[in-house]
Amino acid sequence: MAKSSRSHDGVSVDDPIYAKRHSAAHLLAEVVLEEFPDAKIAIGPPVEHGFYYDFDLPRSLNEDDLVRLEDKVKTKMKQGGEFEYSVVDEAQARKIFADQPYKLELIDKMVAAGTDEYGEASEETVISTYKHGDFEDLCRGPHVDNIKKLDSRGFKLSRVAGAYWRGDESRPMLQRVYGLMFNTKEELAHHLWQIEEAKRRDHRRLGEDLDLFSFPTELGGGLAVWHPKGARIRKVIEDYSRLKHERGGYEFVYSPHIAKSTLFETSGHLDFYSESMYPSMQMSEKDEKEIGAYYPKPMNCPMHCLIYRSRPRSYRELPLRLFELGTVYRYERSGALHGMLRIRGFTQDDAHIFCTREDMQSEVASLLEFVLEVVRAFGFEDFTAYLATRPAEKSIGDDEVWDLATEGLRLAIEKAGIPYEIDEGGGAFYGPKIDMKLRDAVGREWQLSTIQADFQLPERFNLEYQGSDGQAHQPIMLHRALFGSVERFFATLLEHYAGAFPAWLSPEQVRLVPITTDQEEYCNEVAAKLRALDVRVTVDGSDDRMQAKIRKATVEKVPYILVVGRKEAEANQVALRLRSGEDEGPQDVDAVIARITENIATRNLSLAVT
Amino acid sequence: MAKSSRSHDGVSVDDPIYAKRHSAAHLLAEVVLEEFPDAKIAIGPPVEHGFYYDFDLPRSLNEDDLVRLEDKVKTKMKQGGEFEYSVVDEAQARKIFADQPYKLELIDKMVAAGTDEYGEASEETVISTYKHGDFEDLCRGPHVDNIKKLDSRGFKLSRVAGAYWRGDESRPMLQRVYGLMFNTKEELAHHLWQIEEAKRRDHRRLGEDLDLFSFPTELGGGLAVWHPKGARIRKVIEDYSRLKHERGGYEFVYSPHIAKSTLFETSGHLDFYSESMYPSMQMSEKDEKEIGAYYPKPMNCPMHCLIYRSRPRSYRELPLRLFELGTVYRYERSGALHGMLRIRGFTQDDAHIFCTREDMQSEVASLLEFVLEVVRAFGFEDFTAYLATRPAEKSIGDDEVWDLATEGLRLAIEKAGIPYEIDEGGGAFYGPKIDMKLRDAVGREWQLSTIQADFQLPERFNLEYQGSDGQAHQPIMLHRALFGSVERFFATLLEHYAGAFPAWLSPEQVRLVPITTDQEEYCNEVAAKLRALDVRVTVDGSDDRMQAKIRKATVEKVPYILVVGRKEAEANQVALRLRSGEDEGPQDVDAVIARITENIATRNLSLAVT
Repeated sequence: MAKSSRSHDGVSVDDPIYAKRHSAAHLLAEVVLEEFPDAKIAIGPPVEHGFYYDFDLPRSLNEDDLVRLEDKVKTKMKQGGEFEYSVVDEAQARKIFADQPYKLELIDKMVAAGTDEYGEASEETVISTYKHGDFEDLCRGPHVDNIKKLDSRGFKLSRVAGAYWRGDESRPMLQRVYGLMFNTKEELAHHLWQIEEAKRRDHRRLGEDLDLFSFPTELGGGLAVWHPKGARIRKVIEDYSRLKHERGGYEFVYSPHIAKSTLFETSGHLDFYSESMYPSMQMSEKDEKEIGAYYPKPMNCPMHCLIYRSRPRSYRELPLRLFELGTVYRYERSGALHGMLRIRGFTQDDAHIFCTREDMQSEVASLLEFVLEVVRAFGFEDFTAYLATRPAEKSIGDDEVWDLATEGLRLAIEKAGIPYEIDEGGGAFYGPKIDMKLRDAVGREWQLSTIQADFQLPERFNLEYQGSDGQAHQPIMLHRALFGSVERFFATLLEHYAGAFPAWLSPEQVRLVPITTDQEEYCNEVAAKLRALDVRVTVDGSDDRMQAKIRKATVEKVPYILVVGRKEAEANQVALRLRSGEDEGPQDVDAVIARITENIATRNLSLAVT
Repeated sequence: MAKSSRSHDGVSVDDPIYAKRHSAAHLLAEVVLEEFPDAKIAIGPPVEHGFYYDFDLPRSLNEDDLVRLEDKVKTKMKQGGEFEYSVVDEAQARKIFADQPYKLELIDKMVAAGTDEYGEASEETVISTYKHGDFEDLCRGPHVDNIKKLDSRGFKLSRVAGAYWRGDESRPMLQRVYGLMFNTKEELAHHLWQIEEAKRRDHRRLGEDLDLFSFPTELGGGLAVWHPKGARIRKVIEDYSRLKHERGGYEFVYSPHIAKSTLFETSGHLDFYSESMYPSMQMSEKDEKEIGAYYPKPMNCPMHCLIYRSRPRSYRELPLRLFELGTVYRYERSGALHGMLRIRGFTQDDAHIFCTREDMQSEVASLLEFVLEVVRAFGFEDFTAYLATRPAEKSIGDDEVWDLATEGLRLAIEKAGIPYEIDEGGGAFYGPKIDMKLRDAVGREWQLSTIQADFQLPERFNLEYQGSDGQAHQPIMLHRALFGSVERFFATLLEHYAGAFPAWLSPEQVRLVPITTDQEEYCNEVAAKLRALDVRVTVDGSDDRMQAKIRKATVEKVPYILVVGRKEAEANQVALRLRSGEDEGPQDVDAVIARITENIATRNLSLAVT
C-alpha cells in the first residue's frame, strides 16, 4: 500500500475515479451558477464515494432543487465536452474570479503561502484553471479528458449540509452539496445498498433496540455500561478467547488499570503518547513529589514487562506468552467517538510474547495462524493484511533484526494465504507490524488484529534472559491484539450479523411460547431440561397471544422459538420455528433439544440443519 | 457485639485480660527501673495479646536483657503483691514524678486538656497512680487485685523496637519493649504457634516463593501484577464464581473503571467517601468546566444503578440480580497496606440485587445460602456473622422497612445456622448489614462477605419499577460481595493452605518426572493425555537427578508427582507420589489419570483417595 503523493479523504489522485469525481464537482458548480447567477462558489474537492461543493446562495436548497440540479448535471454528462486547462498569472486569475470573493481569497492565500488551492505546498505558486463551456474554475486538476467518460447512471446528489467557510465558525456558513460519483450504475447501487444496510445494522441502534449496552451521560463520553444481554455475548466471546489461549500455550496475567508516572516514563508513553492518555490524578503536592502522579493505563505492555522482569528468565522459558483481557483508557477526541467502535475505555485481548531472535519467525507464523483460527470461528473469512516496514527516517534496532522480523511477518502472511499490501516505511520506529483488517457482510473493512515486533521496550525495561551460552541476551517482544478491542470486535460482529447472532453467541438461545396458560407447566419442564444443558432459555409467560409472542421473540432475534399448544404438550413435542421465520412444525422434544445443543456445542454459524 | 466504652488496640477494658496486661506492663517498668535506675519511663498500655512499655535508657537493650528482664518479672508474679491506688493533686503528682520528664509532660497535658494519661477526655482532670513496692506509675487502672493472679507461664517478652515519643519524629526515639500476657501457658503457646504458622503461611512470602504475584515499585504502593501461576489460581476462583452465579440466576454486566464526578455526586461518594478515593484527574480548566473531572471508581454500585435505570422496569423482572467482577480503586493509607489483604486496587465479586419490599426477606435468605455454598467449596467451614442494626442517630428509611430488612437478615443467619453477634446501632445510615467472617486453619478471623440493605441509592438514582398495581414503586437494593475482594480471598486461601492448594485450585496439577532422558518421550505422551483432559501438567526435562526433581516439585507444591523409570515406561505405569511425601508406588497410568481427573472434577479438598 504505497502511500500516494496526494489524496483527499481516502481517494488517491492516482485512482481514475479521482478525476471523475473532480469533474462531476465542476459540473455541479456549473449548473448551480446557471440556476443561481449570483451564487458565490467556494471549493469542491473529490472525497470517498464522490465529492462535495460549497456554495453561498441566496436561499436554502431543498429536495426539489437537488433533483433538478442532479438532472441537469446528468444531461451535461450525456452531452459530453472537454475541459480546457490554462495556467494564468495572478492578475489574470483576479480578473477571471473578480465576482467570486471566495476564489479571490484562495488566490490571496496561494500567493502568500506558495500553495495550491487545497493549501498544499507547491515549489512555486502555479495558478491554473479548468474551463467547460462558460464555467471556469480555479483548479489544479486532473479531470477526465471528455465528460462523456462520466456515466450519468453512476451519479447522484445525496444531501445538503451546512459548512463554515474554511471550517471557521467566525466565517460565513455555506451550503455544502454532497454528490456520489461511481464508475457504473452497479457501483452506485452497491454503495446505496451498503448505506442502507449500514443504517439497518448500526450497532448503536441495535445496541439500544436489543438492550445490549448504553452510554450513560453520568459516566462521561465514550464510556459504556454493558447490560445483561450485551454482557452475555461479550462473556461468550471472551470465554472462547480464553479457552483458545489456554490451549494455545498462553499464560494468563492480570494487571491494574492505573499506575504511577514512573512506569509510563520508563515505557516512553508519557513522552510519545501522552496526548492519547487521560490526564494524571491530582495528588497533593507532597505525594506527587514523593510518589509521582497516577494515570489510567493506555496500554498493557508496560505491566507485562514488569511481570517478565519479576525474576531472572532462562532461554528454556521462551517463548513466554503473556495474555490478558486488559481494559485500557484513552482520551480520544469527543468528535472521534463512535459507539463501541471508537470508545475511550476498551478491553484489549492483549498478548505479549517474549522470544529469542531465533524463534521470532516461527513464533510470528504460529501467532498469525492462531489469530485467523479464532476469528474465523466467528464467521469472518475475508481478510487483508497490511505489512508496515522500516521507516526511512530514524528507527532503532540493527538491520539484521529488522530484516528478520519483517521477513518473518511477510512469510507468516504468505503461509496463511491471505492477500496483503506493503506499507513501505509505515512501521513504528521500534519495529515492523502487520495490521489485519476484515470485511464484513456489507463489504466494509474493519481494523482487527495487530502483530507488532518491538525492539524498544525490552531495551527500556532492561529485559534479559540467560541464553544456552550462559550469557545475558535481550528478548524480542511481540505485541499482539487478536480482536484488537473486545468492544470493537463486538460492534463489528453485531453489525455483521445485524443482531441475529449464531446460536452459540446469542444472549437468549431458546424462547418457549405456550399458546395458552395450560401449556406453561410443560414449557417450564422443557426449559428446565434445556437449562440443565446450559442452554440460555426463557418461557414467555405473558398474557400476549401466540402471534404476538412469536413476533416479540423474532424482533429480539432469539434463534429458536419453540411453540407449544395442547397437541404438542400431549405428544411430548414442540413446534420449531427459526428466527428467520421458517416454521419446521411439530417435532419430538428430545430431538429438538439434541439439535439445538449440537448446534451450540459446534459453534455453528447457521441455524439450519446441514 | 456491643461496643466497649474504652479499648486499646482491640482489647476491651471490660475483658479481665485487660487488667492482667496492664499489670504486667507495670511490673516490666518496675524491673527496668531496678536494672537501670536512670531510666526515664514513658507510657505502657495493654494491647492485643499483651502490652508494651516505652523507655528512655542509657543503652540499647539486647536479647540477653530481655531474657533477664522477663525472668525478673516472672519472679515478681510468683511472689505476688497488691497495687495501691491513689488519687493525687497536681502538685503531689509533680513531686512523685519529679525525675520522670515524660510523666511530667503527660501531667502537663492532662491538666491543660482535661484528659487522662491516654489522651482521652475526662469530665474533670483526675490524676491517679498505682503503686507496687517502690514503683509508682501514673495510671487510671484497672489492675488485678493481686499480682498472683498473673500466671507467669502465660507471660513472655517478645521484642524491642524503636518508637518516637508521642509518635512525633521530632521528639526522642525511645525503646519500646513488647510483652505477651495470656491467662494460661496454653493460651500463650497457642498464640506463639499461631505466630509461627502465620509467618510460615504469610501470603506475601508465599507469593514470592511460588511466583504468584508481585508489587513492582513502578506501579505505586498497593498495586499488584499477577504472575502466570497466581493468575491461574485467580482465574479458577473467578471461573467457579462465574459458573455458580450463572446457574444462580445472576445477570452479568460490565462497567468502566473510571467515571465523571457527576456520577459520584449523584451516588454521594464525593460527599461521604472521597477520602478513600484516588484524587480526580487534572482535566484542562475548560474540559473540567464542561464535562467535570474523572475519578477511578471506588465501588461498582453507582454503575449498576445506571444499568437498572437504562430502561423502564416492571415488577415481573424483579429480583434483578446484577453481577460483576468489578475492579475498584481506593487510596488506602500506605501504612494500612498489607500485601493482597489490604490493597489499593482490588476486584469485588460484586452483586446488586434490586427487589421489592415483599421479596426482600426471601431474597436475603437465598443470598446467604448462596454465599455459604460457594465459600464452603473452597474448604472454609468456620463462620461468624455480625449483624449491624439501625444507628441511634440520623438514618434514612421508615421504621417498617428497617425492621423488615433487619429481621430478614437475622432470619437468614438463623436459617443458615451460623453463630452471630449483634452490632447494635452499627449499621450504615442507609441500611442494616451482615458482615461474614471466616476462621482459617490457624484460627485467625478474616473479613469475607457482606450483605447490605440499601434504601438510599434507589432514592438518589430515582430508581423505579412499575408494580402489579400499575403504579411506580422504589425497589430496595441489596449490595452483596461474596468473596469480598478476590485479592483478599485469594490471600486468605493462600495462607489457609500454606500454598498447598487442593488440586482443582493448583496452578500446576501434575508434574511428570522422567528418571532418565530415555523416559522423556513416554512422559510427554502421558502429559499430552492429561492436557487433552484440561489437566495442568508439565514434564521436568531438566538434567537434574530424580530426587532433585521430586524435591523441586514438592517445594513448588505440585499436588501429584508422577515418577517414571524404565520399568514404569515399559509396563505403561507411573509411580505416584503426593506433594505430602506419600509414595503410592507404580500403578497403571490410566487408573492414575482417572483418579486425578476425578479429584479435580469433584473439586476435592484432599488429595487422598477416600
